[in-house]
Amino acid sequence: MSNDYPSYLLEKAVEAFNSLPGIGRRTALRLALHILRQPKDDVAQFAESISHFREEVKRCSVCHNISDNDICDICSNPNRDKTTICVVQNVQDVMAIENTRQYNGLYHVLGGIISPMDGIGPGDLTIEELVQRVAAGGVKEVIMALSSTTDGETTRFFLSRKLEPYNVIITTIASGISVGEELEYTDEITLGRSILNRVKL
Amino acid sequence: MSNDYPSYLLEKAVEAFNSLPGIGRRTALRLALHILRQPKDDVAQFAESISHFREEVKRCSVCHNISDNDICDICSNPNRDKTTICVVQNVQDVMAIENTRQYNGLYHVLGGIISPMDGIGPGDLTIEELVQRVAAGGVKEVIMALSSTTDGETTRFFLSRKLEPYNVIITTIASGISVGEELEYTDEITLGRSILNRVKL
Repeated sequence: MSNDYPSYLLEKAVEAFNSLPGIGRRTALRLALHILRQPKDDVAQFAESISHFREEVKRCSVCHNISDNDICDICSNPNRDKTTICVVQNVQDVMAIENTRQYNGLYHVLGGIISPMDGIGPGDLTIEELVQRVAAGGVKEVIMALSSTTDGETTRFFLSRKLEPYNVIITTIASGISVGEELEYTDEITLGRSILNRVKL
Repeated sequence: MSNDYPSYLLEKAVEAFNSLPGIGRRTALRLALHILRQPKDDVAQFAESISHFREEVKRCSVCHNISDNDICDICSNPNRDKTTICVVQNVQDVMAIENTRQYNGLYHVLGGIISPMDGIGPGDLTIEELVQRVAAGGVKEVIMALSSTTDGETTRFFLSRKLEPYNVIITTIASGISVGEELEYTDEITLGRSILNRVKL
């Protein structure tokens, strides 16, 4: 018997859950005991879903989004506008933009953002792959949909320099006040930028 | 492609995590993408730990605690005092009492508590098994280590009635003020009971 757990198998299961981010030992124990109350088939399928996902899921060879195939459903969709590439940080951002149903172009998933503080440089991201996509021709516009942070700013600056040699329009998503937000509660920098970036009605 | 996820495999992994208590869809997605960044072997082991735990772990045939064998390490330990049984609600309670290192008897895990509100009756718990253990003889004392709640009270009352016919001392863990707690912040019921249950110095 271990010092703490009545069962070695329980201890291993708790360690497994505890290895996930944001799940402490107490929650891990609660999850393991929850698992014990579920039908064996359900638990087998739970484990299978996760290991199968890790084994089989791919990165799209074009845009680097998560995909079940070598080329993802967005890149292989003939109805999407292949002249526009929207550059995003990660998979969640693709999902967020897709949910708006306002965008019909392609994506490019950087896999992170340039962050000297976190030791992430251009070489850690899919920047070279983006340059090659643009250099290959056929792209008219690259939209940068990156966070309004210092790291986002750095990455936008780096990317625009990299894409400068090519005949492509570079844009960035608008920053300004949120829809439904009261002017008086908007921070000054955002409000100032929303005035500078005003659009014609 | 699903409406929301770029990959069917990702969707299945998110659903798996989302099926756990207290884990919403957003956290489930974060966990799935975390899994994607781990080495394949680690993820395979993660899944294996959980399914193996569910497949192989047993309930001790004596005390109903979680165990790797038919009889758990506590029940099969020759150094434990077999004349004393401590009745607890669940596995966590066994672990909590073991951690105090103040108890050297055996346990009996009820698997819950009588709770008319939650529809849990005596038949849903291992009460009959406890009565049989006591009826078999050799037990001198049954300690009830149940919560100080109405349900705990109900269960204590029911158990003492059930064990009445047998020649066994029935005790309950002391309720009173917590160690380190200030008298003035202790609730009145707890303080009142601590006076009634005063012990000789």
